[in-house]
Amino acid sequence: MSEPFSFRLTATDGAARTGEVTTAHGVVHTPAFMPVGTQASIKGVHHDDVRASGAEILLGNTYHLMLRPSAERIAALGGLHTFMRWPYPILTDSGGFQVMSLSPLRKITEQGVTFRSHIDGAMIELTPERAIDVQIMLGSDIAMQLDECVRLPAERGEIERAMKLSLRWAERCKRAFEAAAPGRALFGIVQGGDDLALRIESARALDEIGFSGFAIGGLAVGEPQEVMLKIVAETAPALPVERPRYLMGVGTPADLIEAVARGMDMFDCVMPTRNGRHGLAFTRFGPINIKNAHHADDPRPLDAESRCSAARDFSRAYLHHLFRSGEALGGTLLSIVNLFYYQDLMAGARAAIGAGRFADYRDKTKEQWIARPDPNTRDPNAAEI
Amino acid sequence: MSEPFSFRLTATDGAARTGEVTTAHGVVHTPAFMPVGTQASIKGVHHDDVRASGAEILLGNTYHLMLRPSAERIAALGGLHTFMRWPYPILTDSGGFQVMSLSPLRKITEQGVTFRSHIDGAMIELTPERAIDVQIMLGSDIAMQLDECVRLPAERGEIERAMKLSLRWAERCKRAFEAAAPGRALFGIVQGGDDLALRIESARALDEIGFSGFAIGGLAVGEPQEVMLKIVAETAPALPVERPRYLMGVGTPADLIEAVARGMDMFDCVMPTRNGRHGLAFTRFGPINIKNAHHADDPRPLDAESRCSAARDFSRAYLHHLFRSGEALGGTLLSIVNLFYYQDLMAGARAAIGAGRFADYRDKTKEQWIARPDPNTRDPNAAEI
Repeated sequence: MSEPFSFRLTATDGAARTGEVTTAHGVVHTPAFMPVGTQASIKGVHHDDVRASGAEILLGNTYHLMLRPSAERIAALGGLHTFMRWPYPILTDSGGFQVMSLSPLRKITEQGVTFRSHIDGAMIELTPERAIDVQIMLGSDIAMQLDECVRLPAERGEIERAMKLSLRWAERCKRAFEAAAPGRALFGIVQGGDDLALRIESARALDEIGFSGFAIGGLAVGEPQEVMLKIVAETAPALPVERPRYLMGVGTPADLIEAVARGMDMFDCVMPTRNGRHGLAFTRFGPINIKNAHHADDPRPLDAESRCSAARDFSRAYLHHLFRSGEALGGTLLSIVNLFYYQDLMAGARAAIGAGRFADYRDKTKEQWIARPDPNTRDPNAAEI
Repeated sequence: MSEPFSFRLTATDGAARTGEVTTAHGVVHTPAFMPVGTQASIKGVHHDDVRASGAEILLGNTYHLMLRPSAERIAALGGLHTFMRWPYPILTDSGGFQVMSLSPLRKITEQGVTFRSHIDGAMIELTPERAIDVQIMLGSDIAMQLDECVRLPAERGEIERAMKLSLRWAERCKRAFEAAAPGRALFGIVQGGDDLALRIESARALDEIGFSGFAIGGLAVGEPQEVMLKIVAETAPALPVERPRYLMGVGTPADLIEAVARGMDMFDCVMPTRNGRHGLAFTRFGPINIKNAHHADDPRPLDAESRCSAARDFSRAYLHHLFRSGEALGGTLLSIVNLFYYQDLMAGARAAIGAGRFADYRDKTKEQWIARPDPNTRDPNAAEI
């Protein structure tokens, strides 16, 4: 029997907040960054390193797991926590976003979404009820409603249609979930693209349906950062204060700090591991592209004062060599560096909010990124590779 | 100033022996297995895991390191120990073997070997003196002479020519080394293919030149296991008792146990990591091909009693899933499993030799491999993939 899910707000500082999400598998301190365990693995990184970085919760991708090894198999093996040996909290997405981005063929109807598996070509139907069923089989602590996410830019009519469909799916998800998983958490997802009025409408309607937490979805899908932050700033106040707020798929360190400033509590992104595998390290001094030639003879570590051994104990020259030589250890070490940095950034935010000095923390953190940029990294806030 | 290199024989049991190799970077207990750090990295495995497995010494590949990042660069960065952050003993090969196996174009003369770099196509000359110079720049605790290794089968005349050239190179290496690295260790390499008389002649001539240790090279290059073991059994007694004996590039767990039984002390091989990356786990119960479909629903770990977390704490179903999904963590975990197993095998051999029951250990170890073979692994001693 799972313990009931709860959220407790512990401090506020302007719009920024700290809190504690309690789940059957432990407590998550917010603002929290969730590393992404796409296929039941944080790419290239051992779970022990993920945990050591400070991660208190992982995200699992329902789309990938339902296709392989299948939710039924994971359930038979004791659920996702046992299967992947991560005994701490897990949030699963609904699968909807990956269906949109990965499946070569898909059809959306009122009933749900039908798509062709990118693995074996099988036609698969994902309805709101099935998305909940799968997430219950996975045993996630926090499940997400199925939603439809439109790419931006898009016509207002198209954005509104998808938002309203997502609301009807939200209701169906809630009904399916309540019957099957009392005491566990289901989050609703605000849609509405870059249209503020639609966002507010979506947020209020979801609040009325009632969820354990609320996500803002459909952002970080190609729009400029200021558009994203504006939507976040306007949408967060329309969500109930006493529930956690999760900004899906975001983002760069700067995105996270700014979204925390606007009242968001939870984040997930593949950036720390994906960029790490491609040679980009996030550090207190801004991003460092370790593949640049000028690192080849540099005996300095990425950050001599980091609590992360990979950042502190290996020279830039060695990390550069690993990437030049195609050694997988390079991607692993930089992924670890980045996972630690993201957790440190959130821990710093939590401490600053608790002390009522978040604005100062935000300014100082961003100043330091720019003060000593890597000479060959043109844009110190660049993150996408 | 380096401490002098030394070897102390601590026990014998039949032809099998235990000993301690002392270097400036620590003691190595023999029989010892050396993981291979080809490009200053044990492929896919963090150094901390390599150390935790029990490895007391690594092998570095001179050929790879001299081409990239170059011995000069590594020297400027403090030597290989500092560069790769492995403060324990390191043995480097001479580069000769990789020149033969990797370079698309090579020419062997009395002077040395000229070859085309497989990285940038540059023509490079490797002489005995240069091989020593490079290894001194790398700062290895144990350097190897340059030798010429012929593939088997080969004509006796060709084997003899290469063996005699290797002896002349051995003398040149010794002269170059003594002048530059007093107190550090240089090993000679016995050649002579599958010809026992040539092997004995090579061993005696090397003993006369005088080295800190002796390797048997040019085996595990395609000949049957019984040929290799016969050469080892006949060659080892021709080497001085009071020096360590290193069987290069060997091998499977069975190869190691049998070579220990014939008086060999040191081994290196890429098999634990290469086979691990390809889904083959070495265990007390023999090799397990984790990619086989029948593991998909198996909640058992590879070995519930292993001291290796990767073998003990993850289910076969999960490891199978990681390989099926192309997740790099699978190769990393199985590489760790195999590195631990190889070290455990050597630790078991050392304990058994010390207790005078090595024959029993050898029999019991091999019996257990066969008693519970993985149902879908046809040959329980199979190791090459």
